[in-house]
Amino acid sequence: MRFTSETSSDGVCEQLFFLNEIPGVLWTPEGAAGTRPLIVMGHGGGQHKKAPDILDLARRFVTESAFAVVAVDVPGHGDRPLDEEYHRIATENQARVEAGAEPAPLIAEFHALVARQTVPEWQGVLDAVQKLDHVGAGPVGYWGVSLGCGLGVPFVAAEPRVRAAVLGLGGAAASADDAARITVPIELLVQWDDERVPRDQSLALFDALASAEKTLHANPGKHADVPVFELDSTLRFFSRHLT
Amino acid sequence: MRFTSETSSDGVCEQLFFLNEIPGVLWTPEGAAGTRPLIVMGHGGGQHKKAPDILDLARRFVTESAFAVVAVDVPGHGDRPLDEEYHRIATENQARVEAGAEPAPLIAEFHALVARQTVPEWQGVLDAVQKLDHVGAGPVGYWGVSLGCGLGVPFVAAEPRVRAAVLGLGGAAASADDAARITVPIELLVQWDDERVPRDQSLALFDALASAEKTLHANPGKHADVPVFELDSTLRFFSRHLT
Repeated sequence: MRFTSETSSDGVCEQLFFLNEIPGVLWTPEGAAGTRPLIVMGHGGGQHKKAPDILDLARRFVTESAFAVVAVDVPGHGDRPLDEEYHRIATENQARVEAGAEPAPLIAEFHALVARQTVPEWQGVLDAVQKLDHVGAGPVGYWGVSLGCGLGVPFVAAEPRVRAAVLGLGGAAASADDAARITVPIELLVQWDDERVPRDQSLALFDALASAEKTLHANPGKHADVPVFELDSTLRFFSRHLT
Repeated sequence: MRFTSETSSDGVCEQLFFLNEIPGVLWTPEGAAGTRPLIVMGHGGGQHKKAPDILDLARRFVTESAFAVVAVDVPGHGDRPLDEEYHRIATENQARVEAGAEPAPLIAEFHALVARQTVPEWQGVLDAVQKLDHVGAGPVGYWGVSLGCGLGVPFVAAEPRVRAAVLGLGGAAASADDAARITVPIELLVQWDDERVPRDQSLALFDALASAEKTLHANPGKHADVPVFELDSTLRFFSRHLT
């Protein structure tokens, strides 16, 4: 793990790093020492580790809850090079959708493919970050919607250190088997008029989760219209389960 | 409005009253003076104005939010005499369910009938309570699940003083038209494995609400298994909209 920069503003320390070839960012309270809860955040499709929604929520985790937060670029995103295979598949999918194919199954299949790479990558990031003195091996949460849900479901299913997760804007198409292996508390965000994820697929993902505590929050609006009050709920959810 | 008793405990003043023949209870902070938000609470079927769930949540509204809370017995419930017509219909419905009829439409039809009486009753209670010095004409919220939802949907639709409501454990069967007239923020509680309300009816009620801000919270379990953390959410919802 190689740190390339460290800056601080308004109580939040931001460290950019590489783990092997994976570019990442770690946010912690300024002057933090000792073990604390850690949130792994997965960004959306076409986005990156410091996308505005990630950055805003990460800063809130740090300033309001004194958590650490880590995010890395998904292959082919942010500061990572174009991945030839993923790019080819994404381009083919785009053409199939323009020719009239249903996008949801194609997206789900693509997420499942990428997850085979990102699950071990994120587990390696978790190993490395938890060795740092100002993070430590505390309780871990996962937050991710859209692509971050498609990659997050297999990650949460595979990673026993994750104790609670906020997921959403994703369907069960490719991840029902993984969802059935998840037993930790989940808050699942559903946009009622999501133009990318069919409603029945969102509800099927909620059904598939094996968690005894799982709560579905549905709100009107399209894929990107998650209301601001859900961020408050997310902070409380993780405070309840990680502290 | 005739008060029949007043007691206080742990910071909560409880006043029992009659408005005409309607028995009610008003909870306010001990020593309260001046206008404050008011929550009207509707109890469940076979329950009464001081049922444990009503009492527990009312005390939290008072102690944590300094709200006033009012609840009255629904006809045929609590301290009210048996209503011959309602009793006859309920008995007939029970027999039809035992003979194999679907309970949900019968329940919905029954709620719609009772609501024609309770909507004006509750409006009268609101008139009377808001004239009291320690309540006043502040913002009003409504809370009710199960029977309290069946009667609450038409009440919230009819009563412009209600600015926000928590509803749930009820379906759209008899109340879709009323729901379509509701435009205030709603938090709707759904039990995913509700043995009394079909899931599609709960989702149809959410769909039918005309509110720009409406949020559906679904949790696993049967009709009576609403998790405790939803009470915290309810308190925050009303704080956000009434203060």
